[in-house]
Amino acid sequence: MITSPSREEGVLGRCGLLYLPHATVETPVFMPVGTQATVKAMTPDELEEIGFGLILGNVYHLHLRPGEQLIARAGGLHRFEGWSGALLTDSGGYQVFSLSGLRRIGEEGVEFQSHIDGSRHLFTPQIVIEIERQLGADIIMAFDECPASTVSEEYIRQAMERTHRWAKICLEEHIRHGRMAVGGWPQALFGIVQGGISYELRAESARVLTELDFDGFAIGGLAVGEEAAVRNEIVAWTVRFLPENKPRYLMGVGTPVDILEAVRRGVDMFDCVLPTRNARNAQAFISEGVINLRNARYEQDFTPLDPKCECRVCRRHTRAYIRHLFKAKEILGPRLVTYHNLAFYHRLMRSIRHHLREGTFEVFYKSFRSTYQTEEETIDE
Amino acid sequence: MITSPSREEGVLGRCGLLYLPHATVETPVFMPVGTQATVKAMTPDELEEIGFGLILGNVYHLHLRPGEQLIARAGGLHRFEGWSGALLTDSGGYQVFSLSGLRRIGEEGVEFQSHIDGSRHLFTPQIVIEIERQLGADIIMAFDECPASTVSEEYIRQAMERTHRWAKICLEEHIRHGRMAVGGWPQALFGIVQGGISYELRAESARVLTELDFDGFAIGGLAVGEEAAVRNEIVAWTVRFLPENKPRYLMGVGTPVDILEAVRRGVDMFDCVLPTRNARNAQAFISEGVINLRNARYEQDFTPLDPKCECRVCRRHTRAYIRHLFKAKEILGPRLVTYHNLAFYHRLMRSIRHHLREGTFEVFYKSFRSTYQTEEETIDE
Ligand SMILES: [Zn+2]
Ligand SMILES: [Zn+2]
Repeated sequence: MITSPSREEGVLGRCGLLYLPHATVETPVFMPVGTQATVKAMTPDELEEIGFGLILGNVYHLHLRPGEQLIARAGGLHRFEGWSGALLTDSGGYQVFSLSGLRRIGEEGVEFQSHIDGSRHLFTPQIVIEIERQLGADIIMAFDECPASTVSEEYIRQAMERTHRWAKICLEEHIRHGRMAVGGWPQALFGIVQGGISYELRAESARVLTELDFDGFAIGGLAVGEEAAVRNEIVAWTVRFLPENKPRYLMGVGTPVDILEAVRRGVDMFDCVLPTRNARNAQAFISEGVINLRNARYEQDFTPLDPKCECRVCRRHTRAYIRHLFKAKEILGPRLVTYHNLAFYHRLMRSIRHHLREGTFEVFYKSFRSTYQTEEETIDE
Repeated sequence: MITSPSREEGVLGRCGLLYLPHATVETPVFMPVGTQATVKAMTPDELEEIGFGLILGNVYHLHLRPGEQLIARAGGLHRFEGWSGALLTDSGGYQVFSLSGLRRIGEEGVEFQSHIDGSRHLFTPQIVIEIERQLGADIIMAFDECPASTVSEEYIRQAMERTHRWAKICLEEHIRHGRMAVGGWPQALFGIVQGGISYELRAESARVLTELDFDGFAIGGLAVGEEAAVRNEIVAWTVRFLPENKPRYLMGVGTPVDILEAVRRGVDMFDCVLPTRNARNAQAFISEGVINLRNARYEQDFTPLDPKCECRVCRRHTRAYIRHLFKAKEILGPRLVTYHNLAFYHRLMRSIRHHLREGTFEVFYKSFRSTYQTEEETIDE
């Protein structure tokens, strides 16, 4: 990864390039979430048209359905889903540890039951790396334990230490296979820093993991209900312990403002279900915040979702029409808002990169924060 | 309408051009159904990309939601739904008369209750024409009574005679408004021939309606459960009474074979929910018939939906992937199959027009019938 840090006072953000087998990706980057081998409601054509070059897939979901063997027979996840850009697979830790009633954690790994059919499965670091090799994403994540935010600090320490032991096993497996996917191309392996909201644990986790030869580092275990201010502090603190020359990925974050705050603190990569999930609930991200198209005020609003947006949807469709589609339960409603929301996120990241390069990030950040209402309440509700 | 009849022996099919305010349309033509101001799961961009220039809207549904006033304020149905091609609005007769428990038929019109909220509404020929003027479609349909296939011949006669009286009122209203939409462009009004499966009634209905100055004629009241052979005979019989120089529209038909049979008997226009509705049930139209992607045999089938199809979906995605999308209940599944099915129908109509022009329709018809399995059972079930 090549990075150029901002020269602005107080701005730790940096522009970079990720050289991946299936794409070269500019950072800071937002990665749309394609859990089940599809970014919900979108075609690969549309993702390319917006400009995305890197999307997510999920080991937990894809292992259960359709299974990594089937995907490997298709030639890997890229070919299976018809995606010509790059992919990152989440290791499934977050999903497996969210199945509270259905799992048993041991030193070797986690036994869990499928949420689809109740079948029993085992994830160990070795197994997860093997699944990720079959899927063949450009970036793969180490298998980590992501404890709930409600557990004791003592448990968070235990989980973190187990995550470190698993991280080493993941790396050994990865190296043993020549750092290659089953399909024959190189994969980058990222370690995941844990430690909850404890400064001490985060520092320790970052120190342990950065001594290992990972290609990048994720900050996991955040965006699980903590206050934004706490998250921002933990992010800033953790980034201090991460090397300059490797990408930093804040998992599961977030709103446009969350992303700005984290970029400002030196984070390069983001993923979040908000733009796609909110779209299916008729919520559109626009320059001033989030609007809910079910609101009666849009019934006769014949303006685009966002008059400042030049996406394909805003060039052709009105709020009144899209509201009608949601009222009539038409698939086109979620389709159009998903497209627009992802275009909004993509444009946000492009602006962020532009202002980092130009040395005007702080001005952009302040202007955005002053015009954009935060998501606690949507503009119209 | 300009038509050039086939010169082939026994082929009554003809090629034609419909000059409409928003498009010039080649016939025979298939019109995708956009009941609620959207062809389900499709964007207008995609319909244009496939090549459609004329789609349907429905008076009954659009009157109930979002209402013709709102659509008129948007500038008409074309602008409301962002469609730059031509539109045809069905008059709602078929839908209103399908609401068996909820309606009361009188000489003036039909009182019915909304299937959405139970609210009471009245459709008279005057009201329906006014709604169609507000919507502003290029082609509008007279308000007809479409009785169930199970009623007595005596009732079919009564309904037909009422349909004729209503047709006259519709035409008077249409002329009184200068044959113009509220938006200021001309509209073509079609009469609808009724008469069930009675040769006598169909002949009478066609004679009565063709004495009136309609711009085209539809054959209504078919595709309601009668045998295909009976329908084909009634179509052939009815077409004998229709003028050469006006378009003929067989409403609600049908499968690829139904369409071929009707083109052969001189029909120009078709609409049907099959390509879109079947798509949402994982059924794809391909060169050999219909396949159901839920079938286990497609689990590892990494070929396109139809290897002979060059549509955007077949160029990029496999049966195995689309099957996975349906199993995982992803919106992209219905999206991809809808796109392909409509591309299939569009290509069928293009082939029909080509072979009519070249004088090779009969060869094409026989070859299609011999390779394409009819829809009573799908290929794989
Ligand atoms: Zn937009
Ligand atoms: Zn196709």
